[in-house]
Amino acid sequence: MGKGYHECYGEAHAEVKAFQNATEDVEGATLYVTLEPCSHYGKTPPCVDKIIDKKINRVFIGSLDPNPLVSGRGVEKLIDAGIEVTTGILEKECRELNEIFMKYMVERKPFVIMKTAMSLDGKIATKIGESKWITCSESRNNVHRLRDQVAGIMVGVNTVIMDNPELTCRIENGNNPVRIIVDSSLRIPIDSKVLGKQHIAETIIATTPQADIRKKIEIEDKGVKVLITESLEGKVDLQDLMSKLAMENIDSVFLEGGSTLNFSALEQSIVDKVQVYIAPKIIGGDKSKTPVGGSGVECLINAFQLHRVSYRTIGEDILIEGYIRR
Amino acid sequence: MGKGYHECYGEAHAEVKAFQNATEDVEGATLYVTLEPCSHYGKTPPCVDKIIDKKINRVFIGSLDPNPLVSGRGVEKLIDAGIEVTTGILEKECRELNEIFMKYMVERKPFVIMKTAMSLDGKIATKIGESKWITCSESRNNVHRLRDQVAGIMVGVNTVIMDNPELTCRIENGNNPVRIIVDSSLRIPIDSKVLGKQHIAETIIATTPQADIRKKIEIEDKGVKVLITESLEGKVDLQDLMSKLAMENIDSVFLEGGSTLNFSALEQSIVDKVQVYIAPKIIGGDKSKTPVGGSGVECLINAFQLHRVSYRTIGEDILIEGYIRR
Repeated sequence: MGKGYHECYGEAHAEVKAFQNATEDVEGATLYVTLEPCSHYGKTPPCVDKIIDKKINRVFIGSLDPNPLVSGRGVEKLIDAGIEVTTGILEKECRELNEIFMKYMVERKPFVIMKTAMSLDGKIATKIGESKWITCSESRNNVHRLRDQVAGIMVGVNTVIMDNPELTCRIENGNNPVRIIVDSSLRIPIDSKVLGKQHIAETIIATTPQADIRKKIEIEDKGVKVLITESLEGKVDLQDLMSKLAMENIDSVFLEGGSTLNFSALEQSIVDKVQVYIAPKIIGGDKSKTPVGGSGVECLINAFQLHRVSYRTIGEDILIEGYIRR
Repeated sequence: MGKGYHECYGEAHAEVKAFQNATEDVEGATLYVTLEPCSHYGKTPPCVDKIIDKKINRVFIGSLDPNPLVSGRGVEKLIDAGIEVTTGILEKECRELNEIFMKYMVERKPFVIMKTAMSLDGKIATKIGESKWITCSESRNNVHRLRDQVAGIMVGVNTVIMDNPELTCRIENGNNPVRIIVDSSLRIPIDSKVLGKQHIAETIIATTPQADIRKKIEIEDKGVKVLITESLEGKVDLQDLMSKLAMENIDSVFLEGGSTLNFSALEQSIVDKVQVYIAPKIIGGDKSKTPVGGSGVECLINAFQLHRVSYRTIGEDILIEGYIRR
């Protein structure tokens, strides 16, 4: 018996970990994997060779490798080596377990999780902007646990101007995701917290070619990367930004935007998953901000429909999760 | 064995129904009731006399009668007749089962259920006002089932002007609640559907002393009652309206208001219970209406906090219910 999972990019894959953790010799054993074992040299040697070496008898595979260049090649090599292989076991569930990798490999774009936290009447702040805190401490801890698991965290420059957040992960020994600020005209205050402490958490400012070059240099002098994306009506083109972030090895983005950026993200189809924390309180106010603003859709038929919706309580709040239907 | 419940105001109480439904002689039997048996002549004779007549041996009572004039008197009479009585059995649950009656008897005001239906980003319509339908058909059927159970349904005049609804119960053999329109300055269009078909469903227009007397007469000529309430900053005083509705024998009100009336209802503390239907879709829009508007609270500490929150799925929607903490 041995179990393992791929703990960190560049480190040993799940198969190798499982062999390391095995309590007895694995010769003749059956191997169960969520993802097709790799057949190529990447950061680590191919797992199929290891499986053949170890004289595994049979392999059950959840889903094939999403990378079209290698998909099915691992299975082929195992069969050629005389190992019995069964694929498609709980395929849907396995694809979901590996949803970040699947998106990243197939589309070469990060998997984007849009998170909002609101009252039961859909407000993210009171009319004077008080938002600390609408949700309970358990919900906020949960958000920090997710920050620990993603490669990037993204907000708009308005959030930086208004709240001056650190955007770090506040759980013990947690990983700080790369802080991504969408700032089409480089309005970010130069003393913002996110522009400091780059040794603790890196920051990327996404802007357009129209941005002030002197401000760009001023930001870069602080050790912060400025990414110039294509411009979409004068704003950062979010699809282009996602492609550029993928090239920076960012496979997942936690979008904790305000209502304007959230709508742009939905409109430009970069959002994969939505998390909505709902606190059992009512704030009211015609002018109080809501989680998704912007221009909004005109007709209900064009609303962004979620599927695979689930919900659960977290402390006194309710968390609703779902996936954007494409 | 016999079971019964109080099916309709003015008809036989649960105890009498249970005796009628009994499959054998009830002499020496044990009786379980959620509410203390009545000891006075109201629309029907006192149940305690019936219980004594029937030679019931023992009575378990959930909660005492909330009416301070008679509370405990039923228990006393039963004990005096030599019947063993135990009170406070699942008292909290029994009080909840009878929540409408409890509020109505103690405060002489109807129990108010505020219902809203919104998208996952807190919108009750798109920016151009399209709201049919945000929620799924199962949710809408559920709303009609509740309309069947309440004495009154209340909306603001803006809803009448914009949607011209019938506000009837659309389930088979359903009861139509009294339609209550809050209309501080009698702006209701005289050809509104709610002003017609009074033989199918009655309508009450609630207005202020400032309203135009000629319009009042015009409305009354259609067989519609116009209630003049006290004025609160030129608007209908909702607490006063609730007292006046109670005098019209309305023990429960289903508030299906727009965002302005909903905030006034919360601010003026007439709301007991909240029902929020949430559809798994995102509409967006800075200008799209939200379920609770008005001025809103300034500080989170003044938000309307819910307790006893529960949630469940209805079709593809989620229904969150809770009670306003006083």
